[in-house]
Amino acid sequence: MTKRLGSQTIKFDIPPVVTASAAVVGDKEGAGPLKSFFDYISYDPYFGEKTWEKAESAMQKQCFFLACDKGAISPSDLDYIFAGDLLNQCMGSSFALKDCGVPYFGLYGACSTMGESMSLAAMAIDGGFASKCCAITSSHFCSSERQYRFPLEYGGQRTPTSQWTVTGSGALIIQASGVGPSITHITTGAIVDAGIIDANNMGAAMAPSAYATLKAHFDDTGRDPDYYDMIVTGDLGAIGHDILEDLFRKSGSPLNTFYTDCGVLIFDREKQDVHAGGSGCGCSASVFASYIMRGFAENNWKKVLFAPTGALLSPTSSQQGDSIPGICHAVAVEV
Amino acid sequence: MTKRLGSQTIKFDIPPVVTASAAVVGDKEGAGPLKSFFDYISYDPYFGEKTWEKAESAMQKQCFFLACDKGAISPSDLDYIFAGDLLNQCMGSSFALKDCGVPYFGLYGACSTMGESMSLAAMAIDGGFASKCCAITSSHFCSSERQYRFPLEYGGQRTPTSQWTVTGSGALIIQASGVGPSITHITTGAIVDAGIIDANNMGAAMAPSAYATLKAHFDDTGRDPDYYDMIVTGDLGAIGHDILEDLFRKSGSPLNTFYTDCGVLIFDREKQDVHAGGSGCGCSASVFASYIMRGFAENNWKKVLFAPTGALLSPTSSQQGDSIPGICHAVAVEV
Repeated sequence: MTKRLGSQTIKFDIPPVVTASAAVVGDKEGAGPLKSFFDYISYDPYFGEKTWEKAESAMQKQCFFLACDKGAISPSDLDYIFAGDLLNQCMGSSFALKDCGVPYFGLYGACSTMGESMSLAAMAIDGGFASKCCAITSSHFCSSERQYRFPLEYGGQRTPTSQWTVTGSGALIIQASGVGPSITHITTGAIVDAGIIDANNMGAAMAPSAYATLKAHFDDTGRDPDYYDMIVTGDLGAIGHDILEDLFRKSGSPLNTFYTDCGVLIFDREKQDVHAGGSGCGCSASVFASYIMRGFAENNWKKVLFAPTGALLSPTSSQQGDSIPGICHAVAVEV
Repeated sequence: MTKRLGSQTIKFDIPPVVTASAAVVGDKEGAGPLKSFFDYISYDPYFGEKTWEKAESAMQKQCFFLACDKGAISPSDLDYIFAGDLLNQCMGSSFALKDCGVPYFGLYGACSTMGESMSLAAMAIDGGFASKCCAITSSHFCSSERQYRFPLEYGGQRTPTSQWTVTGSGALIIQASGVGPSITHITTGAIVDAGIIDANNMGAAMAPSAYATLKAHFDDTGRDPDYYDMIVTGDLGAIGHDILEDLFRKSGSPLNTFYTDCGVLIFDREKQDVHAGGSGCGCSASVFASYIMRGFAENNWKKVLFAPTGALLSPTSSQQGDSIPGICHAVAVEV
């Protein structure tokens, strides 16, 4: 059990390597600050399909094959795919990947899914069960809006605390060896229910789970926040970001100035009318697979703590007055 | 990579042990042929709650604590929970387990989820990442009916090929060592889309994926079907069962007479009006955690190939005319 540090963290013996990545996004994301980092920007929100759900699958499928091609491997070389999304019964991923013939683990971690898929892929490799895996997720603004909130045609008003679901998919090829940054540690979150019931304020609902997982990571590893060049949560947006900063400040060990959030990075909140920022499985996935991976390649950072966060609600649970449990899975990626 | 056999199978170095199990079911399941094997039969379909979704969570929560108690461990001793269910955003599991404080991997494999959760729990243990895990799933007839088909009050007619979603939860405590049968091999399925579009004939949609995974298992391990005392699929029901038998017969290597299906075992089709038999994540989970585990304890069998099957459809995909992709994860459990 030497791989286990403390109660929630794994330190990999031979850290798996992220050898390739791909990010495919929609036009709004492609008009944002990270425009130059994405591999493909689709100006057709339908991605050539007839429904929003099929559009999401087409986007994820495109992202999957692009990641394989960028890594110069055939899908048949993959030992496992770890995939998930926000749609009911995770149909975005199932339909995207149904014909690729790769052993498939379907995941549901809401917007934390990319952290979950990277964690399990790294475990599969370090455990000696696989040599090549793909971790992939997606979300689509239009499929999410009609599933979680209102049909787009209704033109529902958005509250100031609401976040904008990213239309995007991110895929990583993770291998036992190769060139790229390595997954050195994972800290797997327990569910944290802070009692938030406002489904339009998911940043607040998720921030306590991010605090719990990051604190466990620092406690388990003995690392300070300052150890990292970048600590980046997944989908907290501006409000959740500030709550998390506040929680750490009050705990006496503030996060450093390199703390940011994918939902803050991906949009220009001044110009893009996204209210509290981006969210969705595709938010952290597309930001990691593009901007963060590019930063490793260009030596802008060497140590990143990537911590996607998920709000484990459903429209039904909210209609029944339930609170919104949160979860956060942290992944330390280092050169 | 010595743990890997062929393209889809893992042979564990030190096979993880299923040290405890629990099964909680509803009254219809409790009136069926496996009545005497379940740990708890609830005659209140609401499990003391006010909605069907909360009922499912209450049932899964009860099953989780019962499995821990039967294994004489505290939830805080667990390194990971691998959990999933059929409800949108997997809220059955999230709400059942949100307060237990255990690092949590949420899964979606439709009715194959118990095979997926057992596979990943075994990998976590054999890989040296955990010493104690819980694999758990659930389904509830009433929450499933209104989500996938019609409100119960509508009294929709059921087609002859339809299956009855089991109200049940099954939980396993899987440990690095202890007393009980061991998980010796896993064969992880790729998604198989046979082009079936009838959402009331899921047995037919899933049987080809069961065939693909079982065939891969036999090819990868070099074992014949006769090696096993029991080969048991998860949720094919009577129709899918017969299709699978047919597929193997035509391939020239028929399954032996010990092939059966949890959806066939759990109900008395003559007397219980369940048409093609049982299905749902809770079907294979509750049958394995009760009847099959008891059979190991009583030396009725020593080698079981457990192969839960999932139909990766959603109501939306069916409404959009999509086919029903299937998946099957096989787990070899042996004394």
